[in-house]
Amino acid sequence: MWRVEIESLLRGETRALARAISQIEARDPGVGETLERIWDSRPQSVDLSSQVVGLTGPPGSGKSTMADSLTQLWREQGLRVAVLAVDPNSPFTGGAILGDRVRMQRHALDPGVFIRSMGARGHLGGVSLATRGAVRLLDALGWEMVLVETVGVGQSELEICEVADSVVVVTTPGAGDGVQVIKAGITEIADIFAVNKADLPGADRVTRDLRDMLRLSTPKAGWKVPVVATVAAEGVTGVRELAAAIAAHRSHLEASGELSERLRRRLREEVVELVSARARAFATDLLAGGGPELLPEDARRADPERAADLVLGKFHNQGLGADAAELSTLTGRS
Amino acid sequence: MWRVEIESLLRGETRALARAISQIEARDPGVGETLERIWDSRPQSVDLSSQVVGLTGPPGSGKSTMADSLTQLWREQGLRVAVLAVDPNSPFTGGAILGDRVRMQRHALDPGVFIRSMGARGHLGGVSLATRGAVRLLDALGWEMVLVETVGVGQSELEICEVADSVVVVTTPGAGDGVQVIKAGITEIADIFAVNKADLPGADRVTRDLRDMLRLSTPKAGWKVPVVATVAAEGVTGVRELAAAIAAHRSHLEASGELSERLRRRLREEVVELVSARARAFATDLLAGGGPELLPEDARRADPERAADLVLGKFHNQGLGADAAELSTLTGRS
Repeated sequence: MWRVEIESLLRGETRALARAISQIEARDPGVGETLERIWDSRPQSVDLSSQVVGLTGPPGSGKSTMADSLTQLWREQGLRVAVLAVDPNSPFTGGAILGDRVRMQRHALDPGVFIRSMGARGHLGGVSLATRGAVRLLDALGWEMVLVETVGVGQSELEICEVADSVVVVTTPGAGDGVQVIKAGITEIADIFAVNKADLPGADRVTRDLRDMLRLSTPKAGWKVPVVATVAAEGVTGVRELAAAIAAHRSHLEASGELSERLRRRLREEVVELVSARARAFATDLLAGGGPELLPEDARRADPERAADLVLGKFHNQGLGADAAELSTLTGRS
Repeated sequence: MWRVEIESLLRGETRALARAISQIEARDPGVGETLERIWDSRPQSVDLSSQVVGLTGPPGSGKSTMADSLTQLWREQGLRVAVLAVDPNSPFTGGAILGDRVRMQRHALDPGVFIRSMGARGHLGGVSLATRGAVRLLDALGWEMVLVETVGVGQSELEICEVADSVVVVTTPGAGDGVQVIKAGITEIADIFAVNKADLPGADRVTRDLRDMLRLSTPKAGWKVPVVATVAAEGVTGVRELAAAIAAHRSHLEASGELSERLRRRLREEVVELVSARARAFATDLLAGGGPELLPEDARRADPERAADLVLGKFHNQGLGADAAELSTLTGRS
């Protein structure tokens, strides 16, 4: 990445940020150096990390409206807000404006708000690695709030823990919601519950049911998961309370030492993802030609474990290419 | 695996089969040899592979009822039927009877029907590897029909292509279904559409919409995706047509050479999964202690790509352990 780009990034230019995230998605090898230079340019006194807030819940629960209301509120508090909309099922990335993102356009001219879709199914390592990279960049650049909103369903809800410090699970009054919440194992990942559309009938019951359920579950390292009733469409009702709960969770994470523990755990997980993605890429390339000497003619009778052994043997050999060549010279082998 | 187990497997004993699948899930190293011995015991004339039918669709679309009706029909045709119910979000596996599986219990005493839940989130390589392994075993044992039903939502719908020869996507008349079908990219994976609960209002419209949509999409290697209207709860209406469509798809796959191509492609993908899972396991173990010399103290400033380089270096070294030791002896290095 050119010097001029880094200066644009440091000046907070939206376009430079968007381009840098595209480079992260493309796993440009220059990203590491860029980050190093950003860190080197930061004043030592700035040591607060971004608060990464995950927002997840079933389709139609009003996640986007809530993201918009939270953004508005945080802007009023003078915080810069980056919104990453993650959709693992979407091949779209970058500038793609999602239909339900129209409301967010009122922030389009505000340099303190950055909105980005993270799609790109099929990227090496998936959306997860790119989102982690984007969060790392935003943290280095000193964005106070990073809101990671899942647009898809299923897997993405579980993966949001991989990037977020504070996970907000949005639910609504409505048949089956209670069951769905339990089914997806979402109680385990929620740091805060928001019962949105709290003006609809049944909201009180959902809130009560959630609180009862949470009373029975083990508290998360001293954190009592709050249930906040919101009407995100009105922009105010409950959203202030939700923001307060998010801030309280951050304080809890800092005070308990859990924040630095989460950061380290996430780094470990990310390295594991990268290692696995590289092995996957090697194997995919090697077998792309059909791998006749690695795979038997009759696919039904093949032993995939044995084939994996052979592929890994080649992977190790290639990884030690330089060393092996050196050693074979020394030993007179060729 | 003991000799006696293989003989029980060959005799078609349900318990032996269940135990063998548990061994596959645990990635028991003896599985490869067991399969080899099963293949060696098979008469040369038996060369038809299992037809692996994937059944997917939104919750409440009646997949389980449809699985039951299809099983009943195939049994009447003298075919043996194995049903693998895949739920990537469930930690349960093995004997766990799911609530909606009650209906299937009428087959419980029929040795020609085998029913198994494949859950176990967190297994190395996920449900996917275990399901592939189970399919390979059932194929070796000559089960004519293997029905892979996804119980969860999201990712699992896309992963079903990884094991199934013929993917049946079940949908129902109802608001939003059309949109959902397109959203999840499901038209790309469907070989057959079943519009279930066709006695409900709106069924004709869904069927017509699907046909219109399919008319606009490119045909899949000469296969025209059929849309079958079913009322699975009645056990007969449309299910016979669905079974006929499944049989026709198999014939198409055989005639076009696509079947052997799919088998080879799936084997390649499986080997890639295994390689990636092993690299992941190595990295996880290595970093479990915190990996102080691999990860910097300040997790925020870490370069995960560099850490991945270091982990891969150790992975290659370990993989070439024997060779490296031998070479270092020869070169006098230690």
